[in-house]
Amino acid sequence: MNRNQITEQIVVARMAKGLSWQQLADAVARPVAWTTAALLGQHPIPAELGKVLIEMLGLDDSAVPILAAPPMRGGLPTAVPTDPTIYRFYEALQVYGGAIKELIHEKFGDGIMSAINFSVDVHKKPHSSGDRVVVTFDGKFLPYQWISADDQ
Amino acid sequence: MNRNQITEQIVVARMAKGLSWQQLADAVARPVAWTTAALLGQHPIPAELGKVLIEMLGLDDSAVPILAAPPMRGGLPTAVPTDPTIYRFYEALQVYGGAIKELIHEKFGDGIMSAINFSVDVHKKPHSSGDRVVVTFDGKFLPYQWISADDQ
Amino acid sequence: MNRNQITEQIVVARMAKGLSWQQLADAVARPVAWTTAALLGQHPIPAELGKVLIEMLGLDDSAVPILAAPPMRGGLPTAVPTDPTIYRFYEALQVYGGAIKELIHEKFGDGIMSAINFSVDVHKKPHSSGDRVVVTFDGKFLPYQWISADDQ
Amino acid sequence: MNRNQITEQIVVARMAKGLSWQQLADAVARPVAWTTAALLGQHPIPAELGKVLIEMLGLDDSAVPILAAPPMRGGLPTAVPTDPTIYRFYEALQVYGGAIKELIHEKFGDGIMSAINFSVDVHKKPHSSGDRVVVTFDGKFLPYQWISADDQ
Amino acid sequence: MNRNQITEQIVVARMAKGLSWQQLADAVARPVAWTTAALLGQHPIPAELGKVLIEMLGLDDSAVPILAAPPMRGGLPTAVPTDPTIYRFYEALQVYGGAIKELIHEKFGDGIMSAINFSVDVHKKPHSSGDRVVVTFDGKFLPYQWISADDQ
Amino acid sequence: MNRNQITEQIVVARMAKGLSWQQLADAVARPVAWTTAALLGQHPIPAELGKVLIEMLGLDDSAVPILAAPPMRGGLPTAVPTDPTIYRFYEALQVYGGAIKELIHEKFGDGIMSAINFSVDVHKKPHSSGDRVVVTFDGKFLPYQWISADDQ
Amino acid sequence: MNRNQITEQIVVARMAKGLSWQQLADAVARPVAWTTAALLGQHPIPAELGKVLIEMLGLDDSAVPILAAPPMRGGLPTAVPTDPTIYRFYEALQVYGGAIKELIHEKFGDGIMSAINFSVDVHKKPHSSGDRVVVTFDGKFLPYQWISADDQ
Amino acid sequence: MNRNQITEQIVVARMAKGLSWQQLADAVARPVAWTTAALLGQHPIPAELGKVLIEMLGLDDSAVPILAAPPMRGGLPTAVPTDPTIYRFYEALQVYGGAIKELIHEKFGDGIMSAINFSVDVHKKPHSSGDRVVVTFDGKFLPYQWISADDQ
Amino acid sequence: MNRNQITEQIVVARMAKGLSWQQLADAVARPVAWTTAALLGQHPIPAELGKVLIEMLGLDDSAVPILAAPPMRGGLPTAVPTDPTIYRFYEALQVYGGAIKELIHEKFGDGIMSAINFSVDVHKKPHSSGDRVVVTFDGKFLPYQWISADDQ
Amino acid sequence: MNRNQITEQIVVARMAKGLSWQQLADAVARPVAWTTAALLGQHPIPAELGKVLIEMLGLDDSAVPILAAPPMRGGLPTAVPTDPTIYRFYEALQVYGGAIKELIHEKFGDGIMSAINFSVDVHKKPHSSGDRVVVTFDGKFLPYQWISADDQ
Repeated sequence: MNRNQITEQIVVARMAKGLSWQQLADAVARPVAWTTAALLGQHPIPAELGKVLIEMLGLDDSAVPILAAPPMRGGLPTAVPTDPTIYRFYEALQVYGGAIKELIHEKFGDGIMSAINFSVDVHKKPHSSGDRVVVTFDGKFLPYQWISADDQ
Repeated sequence: MNRNQITEQIVVARMAKGLSWQQLADAVARPVAWTTAALLGQHPIPAELGKVLIEMLGLDDSAVPILAAPPMRGGLPTAVPTDPTIYRFYEALQVYGGAIKELIHEKFGDGIMSAINFSVDVHKKPHSSGDRVVVTFDGKFLPYQWISADDQ
Repeated sequence: MNRNQITEQIVVARMAKGLSWQQLADAVARPVAWTTAALLGQHPIPAELGKVLIEMLGLDDSAVPILAAPPMRGGLPTAVPTDPTIYRFYEALQVYGGAIKELIHEKFGDGIMSAINFSVDVHKKPHSSGDRVVVTFDGKFLPYQWISADDQ
Repeated sequence: MNRNQITEQIVVARMAKGLSWQQLADAVARPVAWTTAALLGQHPIPAELGKVLIEMLGLDDSAVPILAAPPMRGGLPTAVPTDPTIYRFYEALQVYGGAIKELIHEKFGDGIMSAINFSVDVHKKPHSSGDRVVVTFDGKFLPYQWISADDQ
Repeated sequence: MNRNQITEQIVVARMAKGLSWQQLADAVARPVAWTTAALLGQHPIPAELGKVLIEMLGLDDSAVPILAAPPMRGGLPTAVPTDPTIYRFYEALQVYGGAIKELIHEKFGDGIMSAINFSVDVHKKPHSSGDRVVVTFDGKFLPYQWISADDQ
Repeated sequence: MNRNQITEQIVVARMAKGLSWQQLADAVARPVAWTTAALLGQHPIPAELGKVLIEMLGLDDSAVPILAAPPMRGGLPTAVPTDPTIYRFYEALQVYGGAIKELIHEKFGDGIMSAINFSVDVHKKPHSSGDRVVVTFDGKFLPYQWISADDQ
Repeated sequence: MNRNQITEQIVVARMAKGLSWQQLADAVARPVAWTTAALLGQHPIPAELGKVLIEMLGLDDSAVPILAAPPMRGGLPTAVPTDPTIYRFYEALQVYGGAIKELIHEKFGDGIMSAINFSVDVHKKPHSSGDRVVVTFDGKFLPYQWISADDQ
Repeated sequence: MNRNQITEQIVVARMAKGLSWQQLADAVARPVAWTTAALLGQHPIPAELGKVLIEMLGLDDSAVPILAAPPMRGGLPTAVPTDPTIYRFYEALQVYGGAIKELIHEKFGDGIMSAINFSVDVHKKPHSSGDRVVVTFDGKFLPYQWISADDQ
Repeated sequence: MNRNQITEQIVVARMAKGLSWQQLADAVARPVAWTTAALLGQHPIPAELGKVLIEMLGLDDSAVPILAAPPMRGGLPTAVPTDPTIYRFYEALQVYGGAIKELIHEKFGDGIMSAINFSVDVHKKPHSSGDRVVVTFDGKFLPYQWISADDQ
Repeated sequence: MNRNQITEQIVVARMAKGLSWQQLADAVARPVAWTTAALLGQHPIPAELGKVLIEMLGLDDSAVPILAAPPMRGGLPTAVPTDPTIYRFYEALQVYGGAIKELIHEKFGDGIMSAINFSVDVHKKPHSSGDRVVVTFDGKFLPYQWISADDQ
């Protein structure tokens, strides 16, 4: 059973057991966004956490070491996502990607927001015109630096 | 001169004049992320603002009505962006898109974050391990609702 | 058994049982277009409806909680559909998409037709030159609005 | 000057002159959706109408015979549209395309909605929860029929 | 067992049984091109014919109602076909597609050859320089007509 | 001026001059489908014919040797055609390509219809249910033969 | 068991049995390149040869009629091959394809090398700077000829 | 004027001047396939040869240093070629690529045919059933070898 | 069991057994990068080494001859990799590929770095600003040489 | 004149002036790989360096501020490179990408090699079997870390 097959089992078992992602995250005392991404196959899950989660979901113990290894990441079935909930973020990139790039450069200089030293958060914020989904992408600024191992 | 050609002129003129996006935004008293996206061809620019911006950039007045019309949106030259600063957001979707979808559903029910009733913000936040780029995607929650014009 | 596998079973079971989509929709008192899309894997089906449908189709009860969760949407096997009945709608977008965009902007201003606060309807209308398929896409107008959760 | 170049000129000239699509349609007494699509390069425009439109837009007379010929149709710059206003219709196909196909077959039998013997209409309909965009795709039903020229 | 799986079984069973497409067509008194396309998953097969064919091929009766439903059409595994026998027709479109379009417009006006009210035929014709494959695409001319259900 | 640029000029000049493809074909005494394809850039045009056509169209003599060389063939701007008149032939391949292949093999054995030793013809045939477009693809059968230059 | 599944079995069985392609070709007295391509699913294998090969490979007799039918050809898993040994031939087309086309036209006139009346050969030739792989593509020249079945 | 623009000029100038590729190759005493590929933008052309060719073609001397630099190679406008003369070689890869790979491995071991230490040749060979195009791909065999600069 | 299936088993078995790639490489006394690539399906593994590895991993002996054959190489599931650890190398090609090409040409002349006579190495190098990943691509320079088997 | 147009001018001017990349790098005292990438449009060039380079190349001063801005990065014209010198690096990713990922994880833990805090180097190393191209990718290891700006 490879990581993809385990992910499929997790997705189905969670619904069958009626567990929320928050409950799963609480059980391992990790942020819910991290836990959800990890259970969807995007992060290694340390064995001691993996055991807890696997037990809650009623899956086989043999999954624990597979969950503990860094996975082959990338969770979209097509390059351009088709699911509307996910697509809106792709659309935001189409419409605002250029502006985000310009503003990162204007505020920080030449470089990027890290997607590795990074966290993401999904909030629900009330608003007079209706609740808002506020998703925060929070990554370390990495300036372009021309460094080699031989320079010190 | 169509909108794309005007956008190219804006990009070059801004650099040649040494204007920051913030200066351009301040001149029209609009948020800098909106102003940057608009000048990059992603939003209509009301004529009275367009005139101010065009003058600052030293471009031709004939651009004003073109800028004022809703543009054909979509600013990425390829479906998967190649520029690293933009790519990291696509990568975040590959790695966290599934989790964001699950958490929106868990916190709000079935629906999406609007990318239309929406704002985006790029912040610089200090951190002990280095400054962080914090990009906030902030859209109204839209629940899936099966409504037709004939129902009232 | 994941959602895709359940959808495949539904498709085959419906034909084997000789049930119409209308009969299935009537059994749960929902619009037929909504019911068909939901059974084809595009909407969550509340458990009380799911039970009725699963029983009519002779499928296993374990499908009910899977049907009740928001699915990964997107039902076309290729980006450009190959089935002629579906393709004609893609073709209509190729030929009339630009005009529809222009007219939405002319009649409503800058914004979109929501595909979330939305219903679709397929009618049969008689006409002297032959019956007509009239498909109505009916979505709330969403104006581009730059709002953030912190504004009230 | 080929058809694409004329279309680009029309798009720019309309904005520069401040003409609405409705005004252009009224000038030639044609439905506004047809007129807009035609001016965007998707239909031939009979010479007598072409002359009126070309004059209103201040373009060169040499465009008239080019406008009068059946064009190479297909107006989307990418297979999956990036503009949000157009994309929502593609999304509706992803989510509802399968259901629309099933319902056409259930109501009419095996066949398609013609996109040739066809009209499209964009309406603004008021609703208690906000104005709605109602787009009607209205095409003749064409049953699959195995006919050859030699059968009579 | 879905339609694709039945098609795979048909393809293998026909070879194993040594049946020709013509024999199968004769058994149901239908044109051979229609019968072949239908058995390859591209047309619904009425139950009374389906029973005959299924029996000849030694397949399971449960396939009959599945065969009787309008299928999801589109039989090429890749957008550009790789099989040389099929590719030549794609090549002919690359080389002659533009000319065919022009000649349809010149002889009929603006419109298309229907692929729905349509038949195709494959003939073997002798020729002094070698037998020729003559494939006839025969579809009703459909003129572009702007008709709506509300016009009569 | 390369072949593509000459083709663009031919397309525009033909409309401006009001010449039919048939008139151009008659002027050089060649089949109209061949002539149209050739003028659309898909065949070399012998210099003596090229001179006649160039003169009728009012183009520059320098085009004659360019027209006389075998062109880089392939006239569709996208792999899957978007123009409805051309698309129907692609659709016919999607629906009937597999059947055509099977019937060629059943009637001729393993091999192909040549698209080189080939002609195509577009006919208008009257029918009680409306005129029909009959397009004939007529190519020499080429059996798969494993021959090498050193065998005699 | 369809042709693809048989091909997979052949590939594995050949390695397990330690048979060379040459041994398989010798057993049926056919050229090794033809035999290899055929066993890899690209050519029909006459039943009398199929029986010999199937027996050598230890596969099931039921494969014989499947092997005997013209297959759906095309053996590359992606449009651009990723395997380096195969890729170099694709690269040669990228670098020399235009030149090969020009030289075929210069030496033969307008036309093609047939890939049907064709053989391919892989030789090992010694050379002072190292052995060389010499692959010969040998196909009948087919001139573009506009012939129809009705001309004699 | 970049290399692509020079290539376009060469292509047109050669036809206008009526020069054969052989004549151009003879003028610089290089193999005709190399010369043709080089003039089509696929190889650097040493300055002393470049001068001769540029003069014969009547182009500007400023092209000489551009021709002398290693170009960005890759001459196919689409990943899958559309021109039939070139396509047949791609088809041969689809049908025989797997077999060629197997035979290279069987005759040489694990490795590739170099496309760098390489020549290609286009021959016309007479045959009783019609002239044959014989194209020879001739590259050094390169065995997979795991060597690093630090090993000697 | 084909090579892909064996690779999947290896990947899972290694994690289940808690073996490092280095341990596997040491067991066969081969460089770790070579061993890892080979076990991931990219190189043939000589039978005597294959036996050792298979036993360590607890897989079936029947895999040994399959592992010993040159595989169909190419290990990325999509043309543009989605896994961030792999993607950064693709990104480096997007940003530095052109420069690497220029410098190879400037230092060596026209030619390439072989990816066949080649080794790759992954080092960990300490640095005052954090450990560095140093990946060395080390291939023999191959100059473009026009050589044929018949020249000596 | 935008950045792409300036890059094209630089490429041509360098060849016309006969300047090496090393000479350009020396003139600004920067590493040659950085300088080459920057001049090919992949890095901003500080104004004081830009002036020196522009003057050496004989280009217009107005390019200096454009060169000084962070560019839209990504220099490959197609997702899969066609130029053989660049392609070999893509091929190395296809063959060794998975192994490099595994070894980074084995030596460093879960994370990536930065392509931002990064340098690349192209060396010529002599070897008894022929000179070797040694390309070093040298980036800071970035461990996956779940950090947010609000944690300190």
